[in-house]
Amino acid sequence: MSRPRLIALDWGTTNLRASLLGDGGRVIETRSAPGGVMAVQDRRFEQALMALCGDWISGHRCPVVASGMIGSRQGWVEAPYVACPADLAQASAQLVRVDLAAGGALHIVPGLRCVGADGQDDVMRGEETQLWGALLPDGSCCVLPGTHSKWAWLGDAGSVVSFQTFMTGELYALLTQHGILGRLMTYGQADAAAFAQGVQLGLSEYANATHVLFGVRTAGLMGRLPPASLPDYLSGLLLGIEIAGATRSSVPRSVTLLGDDALCARYEAALAQADIGSQRAAPEATTRGQWRVATQAALVEETE
Amino acid sequence: MSRPRLIALDWGTTNLRASLLGDGGRVIETRSAPGGVMAVQDRRFEQALMALCGDWISGHRCPVVASGMIGSRQGWVEAPYVACPADLAQASAQLVRVDLAAGGALHIVPGLRCVGADGQDDVMRGEETQLWGALLPDGSCCVLPGTHSKWAWLGDAGSVVSFQTFMTGELYALLTQHGILGRLMTYGQADAAAFAQGVQLGLSEYANATHVLFGVRTAGLMGRLPPASLPDYLSGLLLGIEIAGATRSSVPRSVTLLGDDALCARYEAALAQADIGSQRAAPEATTRGQWRVATQAALVEETE
Repeated sequence: MSRPRLIALDWGTTNLRASLLGDGGRVIETRSAPGGVMAVQDRRFEQALMALCGDWISGHRCPVVASGMIGSRQGWVEAPYVACPADLAQASAQLVRVDLAAGGALHIVPGLRCVGADGQDDVMRGEETQLWGALLPDGSCCVLPGTHSKWAWLGDAGSVVSFQTFMTGELYALLTQHGILGRLMTYGQADAAAFAQGVQLGLSEYANATHVLFGVRTAGLMGRLPPASLPDYLSGLLLGIEIAGATRSSVPRSVTLLGDDALCARYEAALAQADIGSQRAAPEATTRGQWRVATQAALVEETE
Repeated sequence: MSRPRLIALDWGTTNLRASLLGDGGRVIETRSAPGGVMAVQDRRFEQALMALCGDWISGHRCPVVASGMIGSRQGWVEAPYVACPADLAQASAQLVRVDLAAGGALHIVPGLRCVGADGQDDVMRGEETQLWGALLPDGSCCVLPGTHSKWAWLGDAGSVVSFQTFMTGELYALLTQHGILGRLMTYGQADAAAFAQGVQLGLSEYANATHVLFGVRTAGLMGRLPPASLPDYLSGLLLGIEIAGATRSSVPRSVTLLGDDALCARYEAALAQADIGSQRAAPEATTRGQWRVATQAALVEETE
């Protein structure tokens, strides 16, 4: 087993995932807890960290790097947003250091900010580190599905040129859990045909999104789809709307998907309906990105 | 005071509003209770009705007509949907009669159904009666703001040719009450400039709705708008998206607004930004529509 070199934290809104990395960034051990930024009471972030991996910190005395919402205003210490186009070197030069009471220090990776063609700011925290770990080809487009899915367009040498956030996952959750569409639904049964039908509708009617969503209700009311098929119909519809919106000005031939397997499989199917190819990024993109940031910032030496 | 001729119920999801109408449909008295379809337990609709206006029913022995969600599957008795184009005469010929234990009968106005250019079904219940009460000019477009706002296009002689539902009000409620956008907001302070800014963004970026909504979060995060201005910014954004979507294929010169005053004022301002004129329908559209249905169905005689 290689010597521990870096503790890498993927510290999001809901969960805290910690990885102990050895030479070359290889994963020695991983742990996780529901200790995300929103779950930690009274800003007791250091306690949450020590509870999960205090033994690593005091035992191995290696540096700690953290990416994700822990660098937001609601997090431990606010880290800046680096303006796009931004690359690994720029972000690594702006890590925010937090000294730990137990000794040693935590280094928070800054987020990214960009201004879209619509004049709106957009932001990401955590995904930038995954992008740098995914070792994507120059000029590629990467999609990171999730509560707030991100479409990122890369330039040369891993530089993130621009990106767009879509509220797809949150809208699905809100509409099914708290909205009228959920009242006609039953859950737990997949329906690939209903999903595909939703995608098709979203791809063609994306420019009338707040209307076409009501079609999920009428499909149930009119008996065109059974209650068990409506969740996948809505999911497909929201993905179709996202894909059509994201590719309005230029359609990539292919995108790289980076994220949870089940969610990536949905995107794969929906992208295929839009004639967009896709491949999956390696699952270790997050820890590889954290390792790359740490070596770039000279927190650890890139040794083998 | 004129003799009571008709009891007219506007029986929606949340509220039950009852009007006692005299000759010519003039309002003698109105009452309301939070006895909407979703609030009535164990389908005790008759009890809810008698609690609000049992004295009218037993005292005046006049017919009762009801429009709204009371005719839905979750309501008292399911009334059909009449397919568009549909006029007052067609709907009045399909009232659903419910005999009351107290004597007399309740007559439920059917809803309307249409199939949009996108192939989706759309439905309304209650708004059709308001449309007929608004006495709109042939060929006009009428907008009924609300939780699910409706855009209705009329043909000759009050016939409803087609309509579209937008989930604007529900999305606003879900995003502010249960979503991440609400976390940065404070309420109670109007900001007409932020509203107008939201409308402008929605009108131009309506074809990327699930992305542009995230701009409400970044506007807060980046300090472009204070927390108190974000609710109106989101409201404007959703109205802009609705207006641009509804008028994609043809832009009306002017629309009639029918609904709650404060909400109509918002639509008026947003429509003006889209260069669409507007006027308000008379506030008595609902009871006038119910009266017209009742006379058409010969439940009451049109006397003066």
